[in-house]
Amino acid sequence: MKIIIIGASGTIGKHVAGSLEKEHEIIRVGSKSGDIQADITSPASIENLFRQTGSFDALISTAGDAYFGPFKTMTDKEFSIGINSKLMGQINLVLIGQHHINPKGSFTLISGVLTEFPVLSGANASAANGAVEAFVRAAAIELDNGVRINAVSPTVVEESPAYFPYFPGHIPATMKQVVYAYHKSVLGAGTGQVIKVY
Amino acid sequence: MKIIIIGASGTIGKHVAGSLEKEHEIIRVGSKSGDIQADITSPASIENLFRQTGSFDALISTAGDAYFGPFKTMTDKEFSIGINSKLMGQINLVLIGQHHINPKGSFTLISGVLTEFPVLSGANASAANGAVEAFVRAAAIELDNGVRINAVSPTVVEESPAYFPYFPGHIPATMKQVVYAYHKSVLGAGTGQVIKVY
Ligand SMILES: NC(=O)c1ccc[n+]([C@@H]2O[C@H](COP(=O)([O-])OP(=O)(O)OC[C@H]3O[C@@H](n4cnc5c(N)ncnc54)[C@H](OP(=O)(O)O)[C@@H]3O)[C@@H](O)[C@H]2O)c1
Ligand SMILES: NC(=O)c1ccc[n+]([C@@H]2O[C@H](COP(=O)([O-])OP(=O)(O)OC[C@H]3O[C@@H](n4cnc5c(N)ncnc54)[C@H](OP(=O)(O)O)[C@@H]3O)[C@@H](O)[C@H]2O)c1
Repeated sequence: MKIIIIGASGTIGKHVAGSLEKEHEIIRVGSKSGDIQADITSPASIENLFRQTGSFDALISTAGDAYFGPFKTMTDKEFSIGINSKLMGQINLVLIGQHHINPKGSFTLISGVLTEFPVLSGANASAANGAVEAFVRAAAIELDNGVRINAVSPTVVEESPAYFPYFPGHIPATMKQVVYAYHKSVLGAGTGQVIKVY
Repeated sequence: MKIIIIGASGTIGKHVAGSLEKEHEIIRVGSKSGDIQADITSPASIENLFRQTGSFDALISTAGDAYFGPFKTMTDKEFSIGINSKLMGQINLVLIGQHHINPKGSFTLISGVLTEFPVLSGANASAANGAVEAFVRAAAIELDNGVRINAVSPTVVEESPAYFPYFPGHIPATMKQVVYAYHKSVLGAGTGQVIKVY
């Protein structure tokens, strides 16, 4: 398969890319890193990405920023970080990508445990994750030609110790567990699923 | 209690307002209707609203637009309708309103069944609803002074027959059921809950 990985240089993305590169053609994408540079916060940049990749079989996203900070001082401006990046960035990959994906292809977005179990300072990420998960369920019933879509929802991962203090009591997901969740989505047959890694 | 109802002239809002007006002071708000005009898509307009209302005990939202249309032709531009109105409009009511609400006050936002059960043409509403519900869970753990927050999530309501064709097999919620869900949030003691009316 020809697989585009947005965020392939990241903590999660590099493991997902590494696990698939032997058997598949991987196109690594980041805003500054990768084979092709594209910024998911810009629809024009996403259009430009697909003009360069041509058609593809799977798109994996392991990218998307959100703002972390106390609710008491959070404003519209800070909230827009998660809205523009993790939420609309990933959704625009699908709205635009649907016109370039091959029949029976798949989209796999990333959400996270904060949809269901909030933590202090995490309201922006929770909202973005909740939107991505509901979007995936909705898009799944309208995508044509057997194209599938799922979300992978990890808790904090073992290679992100800087986040551990935000996630008391969360048993960090291993990179292997997260990678397997992506395989379930990309190599499996499910659609409209949120694949929880927690 | 002093209760602000955003969308009080609407199909749902007028019943919620009517059910509370005997025992409470109600301030009706709409972008064109109501005692005070405010546009939830504009943070400046929301700031201006609270300058006029002063402090309050409960804020109820029965407002928030989303785009309905086929996924195949949906673009970022159309998707932004639900992002700016139902999602950020309602979230900004809370981000800004937290600085004006009285101790032990409550926020009650509206989401909808599409978070969980998507329908054709509804991806924008699904995403907005999913964000609002996850946001409510997250905000609940950070709001101070006993301030609570919940979402009411109805399926299509009996007084919106124009939407029935979009919702095959959904038993329309009665206005009484929806009104009671708002009472559960505003007059009850729960927080971080999604009160489903389906
Ligand atoms: N780490 C965790 O514990 C954890 C747990 C649950 C969920 N998540 C979610 O998983 C996602 C990735 O997390 P991570 O820790 O792997 O992040 P990371 O290490 O910071 O990596 C982010 C990746 O995304 C790319 N990227 C960032 N902004 C981009 C943009 N605007 N356009 C295109 N690419 C962009 C980066 O490449 P460039 O620098 O080249 O742009 C990088 O490859 C995030 O959405 C995060 O919320 C993470
Ligand atoms: N009807 C249903 O079957 C149903 C089911 C589930 C969920 N919902 C959700 O419930 C909400 C209300 O639905 P509805 O059918 O009652 O809507 P509606 O009859 O169209 O009423 C909308 C209300 O919101 C106000 N409003 C609209 N845009 C606004 C803005 N930008 N700023 C401030 N106020 C605004 C309107 O007043 P002005 O005209 O003065 O602005 C009106 O009072 C929507 O979010 C909808 O998705 C509806």
